[in-house]
Amino acid sequence: MRFHDCSTAPSPRLVRIFIAEKGLDIPVRQVDLRSGDHMSAEFRALNPYCTVPVLELDDGTCLTSTQGCWRYLEDTVPEPPLLGATPVERALVADRVWHIEMDGYQAMVEALRNTAPGLKDRALTGPDNYAQIPALGERGRIRTQRFLARLDGMLGDSPYIAGDRFSAADIMAMVLVDFAGWLKLGLPDDAARARRWYETVKARPSAQA
Amino acid sequence: MRFHDCSTAPSPRLVRIFIAEKGLDIPVRQVDLRSGDHMSAEFRALNPYCTVPVLELDDGTCLTSTQGCWRYLEDTVPEPPLLGATPVERALVADRVWHIEMDGYQAMVEALRNTAPGLKDRALTGPDNYAQIPALGERGRIRTQRFLARLDGMLGDSPYIAGDRFSAADIMAMVLVDFAGWLKLGLPDDAARARRWYETVKARPSAQA
Repeated sequence: MRFHDCSTAPSPRLVRIFIAEKGLDIPVRQVDLRSGDHMSAEFRALNPYCTVPVLELDDGTCLTSTQGCWRYLEDTVPEPPLLGATPVERALVADRVWHIEMDGYQAMVEALRNTAPGLKDRALTGPDNYAQIPALGERGRIRTQRFLARLDGMLGDSPYIAGDRFSAADIMAMVLVDFAGWLKLGLPDDAARARRWYETVKARPSAQA
Repeated sequence: MRFHDCSTAPSPRLVRIFIAEKGLDIPVRQVDLRSGDHMSAEFRALNPYCTVPVLELDDGTCLTSTQGCWRYLEDTVPEPPLLGATPVERALVADRVWHIEMDGYQAMVEALRNTAPGLKDRALTGPDNYAQIPALGERGRIRTQRFLARLDGMLGDSPYIAGDRFSAADIMAMVLVDFAGWLKLGLPDDAARARRWYETVKARPSAQA
């Protein structure tokens, strides 16, 4: 097994933290996104989407999404459970992860990729070029702020995003709070529960991954 | 258990077909999206995202995404497996579903919601209004065409999208081929494998759901 990573990017960090929580030691190959390693013919043969993370299995199968990597690792190394331990918990983790990705991750990617001068014509990842859409960048920034303001309510009275247990939903939300820093945005000052949650998850050793 | 549905919309159809494949009979409540049922205080109390599908469990838990509904149904009614039967199969289904949603579903939603006169200020689902962005509508249409053109390659020599077994990846891809019809787009004429696959999955009784 080999993990294709980029140590500075938020997407593969979702899988790095998952690997650290499982206590695994998987050989890593760094893909330099700045120099365009991910667009090379060699990398495209592994992943035609030209993105990291990629988990390359021993039989040659390449998993080319966070969802695919998480699922494989959870099913082959069940402890500790990060995608839920009961049917309701597993459904809630899947539900929360999906909403966090749609409302948070997508918003931040749109805000960044449609405004950064270095990403001209790279408004979307993947093999095709797409021009930046300034209005989409602005909308992404507004949506990011709304997402951050709603994390407090999503937590409610629970210690973690999907209930009593640390899960992949916490991994994604924590990575996004850090990613929002790239846009100079953060949790609102009055989001007391979300701020307490962030300190707790950030103090786990896996957060260094 | 109660399933909150809208019989004309593509998103809840993803869950309807899944329910039909599992052979389940779950009480249904129709949510009339045209008259704004989904924005009512009563529905918001169930689902603050103001969307269908919603699977309301007997303990009051509401699953408010296709991912959450699918996960719960798969774990409580394992046969026939629709999210994969082995670790590699489950990972591939998760992987394919994610890519199909990002490249196909998101593209079609962007194409539709940023151009339809009846959806002014409703460029995104959810509680907040967002103005349409015409350039995003155009980009969505281009991406939809590229997605449809790539389905043939995604199938390769396999009968189904994630390999030898019908799965949720086929459900999502089939619903999207039908959804593309709303945009007057379809599989390319020369996509022989994708066209054969579509005829096969469309002939299953669940496709009527």
